[in-house]
Amino acid sequence: MRAWNFSAGPAALPQAVLERAQRELMDWNGSGASVMEQSHRGKRFIAMAEQAEADLRELAAIPDDYAVLFLQGGATQHFAQIPMNLAGEGERADYIVTGHWGEKAASEAAPYVAVNIAASGKAGQYRGLPPRESWRLDPRAAYVHYTPNETIHGVEFRDVPEVGEVPLVADMSSDILSAPIDVKRFGLIYAGAQKNIGPSGLVVMIVRRDLLARPGRPMAKIFRYAEHAAQHSMLNTPNTWGWYIAGLTFQWLKAQGGLAAMAARNRAKAEALYAAIDGSGGYYVNPVDPAARSRMNVPFTLRDAALDAAFLAESEAAGLLALKGHKALGGMRASLYNAVPMEAVQALVDFMADFARRHG
Amino acid sequence: MRAWNFSAGPAALPQAVLERAQRELMDWNGSGASVMEQSHRGKRFIAMAEQAEADLRELAAIPDDYAVLFLQGGATQHFAQIPMNLAGEGERADYIVTGHWGEKAASEAAPYVAVNIAASGKAGQYRGLPPRESWRLDPRAAYVHYTPNETIHGVEFRDVPEVGEVPLVADMSSDILSAPIDVKRFGLIYAGAQKNIGPSGLVVMIVRRDLLARPGRPMAKIFRYAEHAAQHSMLNTPNTWGWYIAGLTFQWLKAQGGLAAMAARNRAKAEALYAAIDGSGGYYVNPVDPAARSRMNVPFTLRDAALDAAFLAESEAAGLLALKGHKALGGMRASLYNAVPMEAVQALVDFMADFARRHG
Repeated sequence: MRAWNFSAGPAALPQAVLERAQRELMDWNGSGASVMEQSHRGKRFIAMAEQAEADLRELAAIPDDYAVLFLQGGATQHFAQIPMNLAGEGERADYIVTGHWGEKAASEAAPYVAVNIAASGKAGQYRGLPPRESWRLDPRAAYVHYTPNETIHGVEFRDVPEVGEVPLVADMSSDILSAPIDVKRFGLIYAGAQKNIGPSGLVVMIVRRDLLARPGRPMAKIFRYAEHAAQHSMLNTPNTWGWYIAGLTFQWLKAQGGLAAMAARNRAKAEALYAAIDGSGGYYVNPVDPAARSRMNVPFTLRDAALDAAFLAESEAAGLLALKGHKALGGMRASLYNAVPMEAVQALVDFMADFARRHG
Repeated sequence: MRAWNFSAGPAALPQAVLERAQRELMDWNGSGASVMEQSHRGKRFIAMAEQAEADLRELAAIPDDYAVLFLQGGATQHFAQIPMNLAGEGERADYIVTGHWGEKAASEAAPYVAVNIAASGKAGQYRGLPPRESWRLDPRAAYVHYTPNETIHGVEFRDVPEVGEVPLVADMSSDILSAPIDVKRFGLIYAGAQKNIGPSGLVVMIVRRDLLARPGRPMAKIFRYAEHAAQHSMLNTPNTWGWYIAGLTFQWLKAQGGLAAMAARNRAKAEALYAAIDGSGGYYVNPVDPAARSRMNVPFTLRDAALDAAFLAESEAAGLLALKGHKALGGMRASLYNAVPMEAVQALVDFMADFARRHG
């Protein structure tokens, strides 16, 4: 029996996507073999891969002067690979740090570029965004990096920050495709798939083609985005299963009405949960500045932390999975990615009210 | 309906593994969610991951002073990452090149280590192995790299080469687990999963722990094998689906009787196909020195290349998939990995005889 899954990632996938993957697992597309057993250079696989890219381009309205790449390594590898590709010897890059993942992006970049922390929410324990006017951006930076949504701290930008002519690089791992994306505001968008796209082991990247012409630093061909773009992400064997599930997810998103429809649902889901927290009279607390609260990841604590274990045990027994908070913050966290329906959020809200009543 | 699949990779997976993956795709292990939807830090996933490692250790008799890693990036990424980790500034490494993949390993390593081609079969068009006495090994090399089986050229080492005290590094992508492995002869073994282990997007590495202490070159943490080892391959989110399918494959291999049993079957399969080629009176030709013929990948040509298209169309219609040779060599190629049963080879051999009769 399927439960409601609030995992921060690898996260819930759409029920319809899983059902289709299950149905055709042994014999895909009349080929006589599983999709996992197809050569990535075979006609059937290439047709599927191209369709996935076309569907993503349609969903996110990606202009032609942007390449779409299907890569490996997780966002963490690209924390390092982005400066390798976008910054030359001796160049600098600006990092806007609003939580754990921004910190990590900056530290993994440090061997490859001079990292300038242009703004940080650390002093405020990442409970809000550093005001735009406090950012110390370098107009000669190779790029500006930020994390539109911080999965652990539950902090999200409402708008794309204005950074002038310097290319803006965004780690959208935890909010990609949760709302329309104004792609032309970005130089490079990347996302680990395991939250809003598909299984782990796949990274989707959207990159302005002129940036691919940057020489970057000396490196093996396999690290060079321009080579991956030239080979349509088949420079080496891609994660074929991940690409396939991502493609099914893109089709599902189209069937749901696209990104504007998802944005409306995601807003409604988040509002329902924050309302339950804020309306609990302090029984549940979310510490984030309301103007920066994440629609995707909602961390919250119980007034009485001694009840955490009971909350987790009872919620799991009630079919509400993976509500344990990240160890950095403790408490609880509910992730409300695209594949989590309102019905799941309603079940969580009902459980929380009932738990408070019984243990209050 | 499932056909016989001779794909070079992503390749056939064991029928029983696919059936189980299909059965439990929606609700894994009583968790209420798919294995793809599990946090890699959750108890259920960690137990599965540890069991997979234990099963691999048992299968390949891996000593405790070797770490086992589940990584991403394909073998190609590790062509570059291995010298980053094992060679310091100004160090050299020896490469034994016996085909396409050895060439590529050397060229991707070049930005990170002084590559010495200590031996190459290129002059002989990779139809055999350069004799051991011709190798010009450097006793001060950081490591010696070779490719035990060349997937495209169909050339395989029968024995592990003796290279003295220098750590031996082997790209076993296309023959890992096809026979027992004498792990202690190696410093580092690595393999893309998509031939003998599981789906693409996963790399399995077996590395002597003392080599992890080498400083290597400056790099981001995500590229450092020692960090992956210290975090049990959960430094970042691993390819969880790939790890899971690999684990099912290891269990299947144990149920088959382990690697000695697989070696006997693989020998019999290869012998049957080479006998059919050699006994065809020149209708089919495999050009490789019989002492170096691969048990895993059997390239062959038809005497009359004008019949190639008919051979491919008719074989596919007969339920024999993916026999087209690599574009570098043309002709045909049959890959006979662990998951390809003797029954499939018999069907191929019968088809080949019938085709020769009809078109001879």
